Amino acid sequence: MKIKLEKEERIDDLQYKGLKIIQNTKGFCYGIDSVLLTDFAKKIKPNSEVLDLGTGNGILGILLCGKTKLKKIIGIEIQQEVYNLAQKNIKYNQLEERFKVICENIKNISKIYKKNTFDVIVTNPPYMKAGRGLKNEERTKLIARHEIECDLEDVLKASYEVLKEKGEFYMVHRANRIVDILYFMRLYKIEPKIIQFVQPSYDKEPKLVLVKGIKNAGEFLKIQKNLVIYKEDGTYTEELLKIYNG
Amino acid sequence: MKIKLEKEERIDDLQYKGLKIIQNTKGFCYGIDSVLLTDFAKKIKPNSEVLDLGTGNGILGILLCGKTKLKKIIGIEIQQEVYNLAQKNIKYNQLEERFKVICENIKNISKIYKKNTFDVIVTNPPYMKAGRGLKNEERTKLIARHEIECDLEDVLKASYEVLKEKGEFYMVHRANRIVDILYFMRLYKIEPKIIQFVQPSYDKEPKLVLVKGIKNAGEFLKIQKNLVIYKEDGTYTEELLKIYNG
Repeated sequence: MKIKLEKEERIDDLQYKGLKIIQNTKGFCYGIDSVLLTDFAKKIKPNSEVLDLGTGNGILGILLCGKTKLKKIIGIEIQQEVYNLAQKNIKYNQLEERFKVICENIKNISKIYKKNTFDVIVTNPPYMKAGRGLKNEERTKLIARHEIECDLEDVLKASYEVLKEKGEFYMVHRANRIVDILYFMRLYKIEPKIIQFVQPSYDKEPKLVLVKGIKNAGEFLKIQKNLVIYKEDGTYTEELLKIYNG
Repeated sequence: MKIKLEKEERIDDLQYKGLKIIQNTKGFCYGIDSVLLTDFAKKIKPNSEVLDLGTGNGILGILLCGKTKLKKIIGIEIQQEVYNLAQKNIKYNQLEERFKVICENIKNISKIYKKNTFDVIVTNPPYMKAGRGLKNEERTKLIARHEIECDLEDVLKASYEVLKEKGEFYMVHRANRIVDILYFMRLYKIEPKIIQFVQPSYDKEPKLVLVKGIKNAGEFLKIQKNLVIYKEDGTYTEELLKIYNG
């Protein structure tokens, strides 16, 4: 399929079932986080209706359409130009039937969808607090990375509102945000059920965390063994290769 | 020093500065948790006044008196016979000047001590929820292990009451209680500042967690690299040997 690329755009091959992604090199480009999260969430039931909070260029939806038999995924993206890019990606991968995206702030979710609408929520939200970190970057990237338009509490609040009873919530985030993550999950009754930390190598501390929560579930948590990305020689670990190979 | 042992008691050498511990073999005997927690807390300032919530046989206080220059540590233990054992241990190690124990429920802490009394709190509280796990055991062990007389919320509530402003809180607990831990710490304004998970070996999931919190501190967390106990050949890792050698 032919597609017209804008000046800053490039196409990357996702190396998975022929899926591809158009990215804006000046915007937020997808990373290992999205690959890990979609692997973590790949057991969602066939025919699930899924919501992606903060879709970006659409990477989570594209990978999930490839990895699962979900019926429909809705992506919410607040930035018009990033939304346009997600639209382009859906078309380019011919996923129009299963993947739709809307341009909205997730804070308005309850005005758009009824309560108890979705079976599953996935999200790779902005990692950094609004006041923290380097801000010397493009505005589109800034909004994707920092809690400017929405924060973790907004994500959990929105999730509780539109998830079905016992619906599943999957998130990837920075490991050092674990207090906020678990606090707001418990507060908004998305009870954490599985946690897995991700560390770059055996001798490093965890940098990312994958969390699965269930709406209104009982308090019982399973901590999985940490996922390690690189071996000592700098090549991927077996477990990571398995994830990349789907 | 000579001491009269009861029928079920035995003396263990702590292999550290000549310190010893008398344990009741039918009660709760100290484990690696206490060694890890006292190492984790060993940088507490000289002349600190310390409180140990749920002292048991006194293991934390004995080790901390050896490893730090704390001025005074108070242990609170609810069970009369376990309290008696702690007393015996204090005497046997000649720590009467620095280590005192009282027989009380930690829920009554604010009736005993004024607000903002302690510089540091250490605690190795019961790990299991009251309704969970094997209950087919001696009552003294049961109370030490299960949240029968006090639960995590009581521990954090008590800690907030008697810790000084910016006072330090150190706890060891089961890793799979991390949601409760972080939720109640945030709720009772003992903000988590350092977290370290402990895993039995490189290929296992974390089983324990060490947490340092500071009363009324800002929200910034450091996650340390996981502590691993055993190497593949079943011997202790270097990092663990370092901890055991003080």
